[in-house]
Amino acid sequence: MSFLTENFLLQTETAQMLYHTYAKKMPIHDYHCHIDPKDIYEDRRFANITQVWLGGDHYKWRIMRSNGVSEYYITGAATDREKFQKFAEALPRCIGNPMYHWCHLELKNFFGYDGVLNGETAQQVWELAEKKLQEDSFSARGLIRQSNVAMIGTTDDPCSDLFYHQLLAKDGFETKVLPSFRPDPALNAHKIGFAAYVEKLGNTVGKKLHSFQDVADALTSRIEYFDQNGCRAADHGLDYVPFRTTSPAMLEGIFQKALAGEKLSKEEADSYQTSLLLHCGRQYARLGWVMQLHFSCKRNPNSQKFATLGPDSGFDCIAVTQSCDALHSVMDALEKEGNLPKTILYSLNPADDAWLDTLIGAYQSDEIPGKIQHGSAWWFNDNKTGMENQMISLANLGTLGNFVGMLTDSRSLLSYARHEYFRRILCNLFGNWVEKGEYPRDIAYLGSLIEDICGNNAKRYFEI
Amino acid sequence: MSFLTENFLLQTETAQMLYHTYAKKMPIHDYHCHIDPKDIYEDRRFANITQVWLGGDHYKWRIMRSNGVSEYYITGAATDREKFQKFAEALPRCIGNPMYHWCHLELKNFFGYDGVLNGETAQQVWELAEKKLQEDSFSARGLIRQSNVAMIGTTDDPCSDLFYHQLLAKDGFETKVLPSFRPDPALNAHKIGFAAYVEKLGNTVGKKLHSFQDVADALTSRIEYFDQNGCRAADHGLDYVPFRTTSPAMLEGIFQKALAGEKLSKEEADSYQTSLLLHCGRQYARLGWVMQLHFSCKRNPNSQKFATLGPDSGFDCIAVTQSCDALHSVMDALEKEGNLPKTILYSLNPADDAWLDTLIGAYQSDEIPGKIQHGSAWWFNDNKTGMENQMISLANLGTLGNFVGMLTDSRSLLSYARHEYFRRILCNLFGNWVEKGEYPRDIAYLGSLIEDICGNNAKRYFEI
Amino acid sequence: MSFLTENFLLQTETAQMLYHTYAKKMPIHDYHCHIDPKDIYEDRRFANITQVWLGGDHYKWRIMRSNGVSEYYITGAATDREKFQKFAEALPRCIGNPMYHWCHLELKNFFGYDGVLNGETAQQVWELAEKKLQEDSFSARGLIRQSNVAMIGTTDDPCSDLFYHQLLAKDGFETKVLPSFRPDPALNAHKIGFAAYVEKLGNTVGKKLHSFQDVADALTSRIEYFDQNGCRAADHGLDYVPFRTTSPAMLEGIFQKALAGEKLSKEEADSYQTSLLLHCGRQYARLGWVMQLHFSCKRNPNSQKFATLGPDSGFDCIAVTQSCDALHSVMDALEKEGNLPKTILYSLNPADDAWLDTLIGAYQSDEIPGKIQHGSAWWFNDNKTGMENQMISLANLGTLGNFVGMLTDSRSLLSYARHEYFRRILCNLFGNWVEKGEYPRDIAYLGSLIEDICGNNAKRYFEI
Repeated sequence: MSFLTENFLLQTETAQMLYHTYAKKMPIHDYHCHIDPKDIYEDRRFANITQVWLGGDHYKWRIMRSNGVSEYYITGAATDREKFQKFAEALPRCIGNPMYHWCHLELKNFFGYDGVLNGETAQQVWELAEKKLQEDSFSARGLIRQSNVAMIGTTDDPCSDLFYHQLLAKDGFETKVLPSFRPDPALNAHKIGFAAYVEKLGNTVGKKLHSFQDVADALTSRIEYFDQNGCRAADHGLDYVPFRTTSPAMLEGIFQKALAGEKLSKEEADSYQTSLLLHCGRQYARLGWVMQLHFSCKRNPNSQKFATLGPDSGFDCIAVTQSCDALHSVMDALEKEGNLPKTILYSLNPADDAWLDTLIGAYQSDEIPGKIQHGSAWWFNDNKTGMENQMISLANLGTLGNFVGMLTDSRSLLSYARHEYFRRILCNLFGNWVEKGEYPRDIAYLGSLIEDICGNNAKRYFEI
Repeated sequence: MSFLTENFLLQTETAQMLYHTYAKKMPIHDYHCHIDPKDIYEDRRFANITQVWLGGDHYKWRIMRSNGVSEYYITGAATDREKFQKFAEALPRCIGNPMYHWCHLELKNFFGYDGVLNGETAQQVWELAEKKLQEDSFSARGLIRQSNVAMIGTTDDPCSDLFYHQLLAKDGFETKVLPSFRPDPALNAHKIGFAAYVEKLGNTVGKKLHSFQDVADALTSRIEYFDQNGCRAADHGLDYVPFRTTSPAMLEGIFQKALAGEKLSKEEADSYQTSLLLHCGRQYARLGWVMQLHFSCKRNPNSQKFATLGPDSGFDCIAVTQSCDALHSVMDALEKEGNLPKTILYSLNPADDAWLDTLIGAYQSDEIPGKIQHGSAWWFNDNKTGMENQMISLANLGTLGNFVGMLTDSRSLLSYARHEYFRRILCNLFGNWVEKGEYPRDIAYLGSLIEDICGNNAKRYFEI
Repeated sequence: MSFLTENFLLQTETAQMLYHTYAKKMPIHDYHCHIDPKDIYEDRRFANITQVWLGGDHYKWRIMRSNGVSEYYITGAATDREKFQKFAEALPRCIGNPMYHWCHLELKNFFGYDGVLNGETAQQVWELAEKKLQEDSFSARGLIRQSNVAMIGTTDDPCSDLFYHQLLAKDGFETKVLPSFRPDPALNAHKIGFAAYVEKLGNTVGKKLHSFQDVADALTSRIEYFDQNGCRAADHGLDYVPFRTTSPAMLEGIFQKALAGEKLSKEEADSYQTSLLLHCGRQYARLGWVMQLHFSCKRNPNSQKFATLGPDSGFDCIAVTQSCDALHSVMDALEKEGNLPKTILYSLNPADDAWLDTLIGAYQSDEIPGKIQHGSAWWFNDNKTGMENQMISLANLGTLGNFVGMLTDSRSLLSYARHEYFRRILCNLFGNWVEKGEYPRDIAYLGSLIEDICGNNAKRYFEI
């Protein structure tokens, strides 16, 4: 098979039929990403491929770094053309890397480029992109339209006024752009900047926050504001899953200590995080929201690079954490009260797949099929084997047919190609099962499962 | 390939030949299961498919729960017909789940049903099963006979009088039904019910148990009683593997504390468990028994469901535990004394496969080939990829040819189909190796290895 | 496909072309092994196959043990012929074990034996080997020449005078035999023999070592001596990765305590190891050396066998350790100072692959492409699935094209066949990607990547 044909990753006839007939046409529900709603509202344009492709994409920066490219050509003062050249030269060495596939899918789908990107072809691709990017279908909205996106879930701070979401709602843009609630800074009492954030949150709700309960109330208030603005999901980024119960008095002491800028012990930080996480969970349950928990990420391990480049610059890693017991305790604490919301769990450590897939089975309910979900292979795991392993594990231990499927978690408007990547891998998995005689060849039924996983399940789950 | 043909899971000619010529005909040694010997002795009959299939099978309950089925239709007051309907409707969404395969294998093998089970066909299957279940070959013994079972290892409390085992032995039933010794309640000094269990154990041996040594002696006495009744194996279910040595005086203090109903610290519970586990191990070694250790299970995490439905209702999960060092210490402590029995190790966490497969290699002896075994993919891992991964890891790091193979660990008389599932996967693995040129195509020798793994090794190992 | 043809493990035409045209001809850079330079210098001869094959190969001893062979035939007084017989009888049961492949590759490549080794053919193989081993091409140097080895990296104690390395350098042997610096005994202040080793190290540098700083200086001196003798790499064998900072005064106290033979706490041992590891790292960085860190090994778990047979007798196992945070801290501490050397990381626990492959991405630099490496599947993982998984994970998360590739880590002069094994698996991986349309079929470029991974990358990385 040639590289990147229309049957890319589809190794069987069944897979090809399922993809081309069912998966391909499904509108995308990209329920968790990091696109700036301002870019969408203002319909941002991009001058060249470096701006739209390399600008904020730390996946690509990592590729360059592991090929010995100097920071000057990555985050430094080099020209956009120079940066693109360095990336193009590095890419061919990344055989087997999902970036190789994503890049060529994006070049093909958006720019109509059928060749291979490398140091020699970089100029040709640069020119082609420069031309294409002038077309209207290459504005932010144009790219979203090209990708048949029904819904975008952005990631927003509780203090956000959701100004651009409101403008977009009024504006009548045909893709729903909904906020997600990400209150990490309010939960990170042990990290730098906590007191400042509490002040900012107080300003947002128009009241000085004096106590733990004040913070909890402020978040409740913001959750309700987000809800009124169409929000259907929250998202927590945790280094590991904490669980530690404590008395109200102790909790208040921890809060005051953190507010005074004192360093919290691990036990104190866990107690504070647990209490506020449970508080938030109760609100999500009340409003029918989805709670997303992301964990086992090692943030900013290279302190020298963190000092010069800041967070989210491509240095974060998979962390190995002891989150199994704590996650059960979080789920059980909410379930006991009848306050467990719909929940999607994501661990960055793929060794966690199996226990996560059994854990979700312990908290399902008749509220909705697949109330508790194991999220799609996240971040570093968002590659062919990672996606396959996540889906095989989920199939083995749960009900794959109820899976809410793919999200990009991306900062790039071109990254919708990752939904295509996911769908091809999904259809190929089904195709293999069918052609090996492990599932009946009932194409209509298989097609309905594919459509569910590619969009209908997410639509129902998030109540879009 | 069509679904579930006679060459189901057998992707090569070599695999097909090995299965049909060697594996298929081997009598089953199901050395670890949870079937009630009373049911066998009394030759229990089943009124409908829900009773024989859904009654105690929490694997199937999980499937229903993850499809949003209400507890009313799972463990509640719904009729048997309604429950079966709900299960039949949920099953097709479980593409890739071993339950999909097991169910259809069982429907085909026992009931001669060649179709697919779903909401529409449920009535037809219900009627077919109702008719079949009236036949003599569908009694408990009939089902065992249909499955060509040479030996069944049940799971029994040390206080059991083994009444039904004795009746079965006298009765001349052609399948050996042997007890296994499962002393968990005597080791769980940190769990509710310990004092009551010690009293019960005392009543069984006709003596009030005043000390740790009394408990140890009582277990020794019951081990000997079990041995006289044909027992060849013990089984320990551990949350994690404990190891902590302590002085006799400390140990006695811990025991008295537990007996008084006081809460033990983790260190105390570990000390007590370690001492009694080592004591039991010595007895097993003396009598030539097999010691089975099952660990890394999270029991009853959903406390609300535990309160209403009790244990073993389908809420248990894989646990991630730190058992590597402790397990070495247990093995080494017994080996140093010359008291290490034949041992089979099972972790519920598949991430433990590799270290377990190296650990067993450190304690082998010339007592018997494969004296220390890594048990077959257990419980949640009992699926196609789980079995393949367990066998590939064992092959990589040990001697697959000495593997004692499959067990059902099941409560259901229809679950012998899982042995067929295992055998097909085993033959397919061998077939792939041979047809890829990774092992010589010496069919007679390969066939002898298959027969060993499918039964001869277990027969020799358990001295049946 | 028949067993062990010229296309062994090469399942596609692309794989076959890549192997036969590019991989096969590449000289071997075996940068980490345990061959004795004395054997090479003296051009050791072997009387029979047991001496060259079974003598020091604890991989083969494990196979015999897991087949119930008595220690008498493994490490005991049995004759060489008897030992070979027992091994030959055990081997066929090891279907799927890499030993089965390595043995037959070695018998074919070196002895021209095309058959299968088992109990019946053992005599024939014995006689064939006895005859062949008399030929000049079966001396130590002859075997190295047959294997087209460009460079051998031995493993040497800091106290070694490197006498045989010097003789070999003068001698003009066409294969470079370079020392590696392995200072474990100097770092293991918590293990038996520490004080004696400090004394030995003092004798080597001609000065009594009174303080931590004295030990550090002595190691610096030996590192420089090694450097002058062609050393390009150091190697640390760690049970787990430690990281604990401490004050100079505390550190000195720990050192004195250890020197006095007192038992160190875990915190003390970690502090001492961390300080000396960082000290060594700084020297490696200064001299442009490669630092290799091997971790997560459980050494000598069977204390009874350790007492009778000593270390490295085939009882070591994979350990599960919590090394993720500590390894980041080690890397970050050196990086912050600008003293992070080129580093290769090896964990014995394959569950660590993913986080390691992300970790290396956080410390790359423009010093050299792939400055930080995830080492080839090590020891127990050195099998087909282990190698594939390591390379797929590296490809997913880093740049496979910059991988420095295979090493034997072996004590045997026949084990160069493992490079062939690796290369076939590598080419097969590339072949699968290409023939599934996941990478363009640009054979010349693919060939250059293959040549890089099979040797050019290592040559550049170690500056050979």
